[in-house]
Amino acid sequence: MKRKPGLTQDEFSKYWKEIHALVALKNIPGLEKYVQNHQVKLNDREPAYDGIAELWFKDMESFKYMSKWYRSDEGKVLRDDEARFMDTSKMVSYVCEELVIK
Amino acid sequence: MKRKPGLTQDEFSKYWKEIHALVALKNIPGLEKYVQNHQVKLNDREPAYDGIAELWFKDMESFKYMSKWYRSDEGKVLRDDEARFMDTSKMVSYVCEELVIK
Repeated sequence: MKRKPGLTQDEFSKYWKEIHALVALKNIPGLEKYVQNHQVKLNDREPAYDGIAELWFKDMESFKYMSKWYRSDEGKVLRDDEARFMDTSKMVSYVCEELVIK
Repeated sequence: MKRKPGLTQDEFSKYWKEIHALVALKNIPGLEKYVQNHQVKLNDREPAYDGIAELWFKDMESFKYMSKWYRSDEGKVLRDDEARFMDTSKMVSYVCEELVIK
């Protein structure tokens, strides 16, 4: 995720944590686990991304259901909220399998 | 992470899981937790990234120590192995704080 132009990283983080998290929890169907990774600023370079969200679903079927919901009229509540703090044109998302090595 | 040109996603995943994981565990100083997220192919579009690695350190000091090690002559063993399966010019890395919402 990349923040919306005009927002500071702090403003982005605050909205993501305090507002968007609630919208996500209330609306996303079948969300089993939800983790936000907020970028920590170590220097003045503009980071490629400001954060990574991890959304966990029970199985592929639940993911596909959510995916369809997300693009539907009902999912607009989430998409509208994303547009309030993210540069959605720079959003990259994909499905992963997690492998805990250590 | 993006795979090296010429490798299939399966070849990339296999090398990352079976070889690079061992090189990482053996060499990276202060690695407390290590997770590989392998991209799952859902269609024929070429994904922007093929995976995300999560490396966990005890504190910022441990991270900075590792970071210095990574760029040193000693860290070359890891960088050389990365170049065997990754397109390192496309690597994006940054420090995050994790916030478990659910």
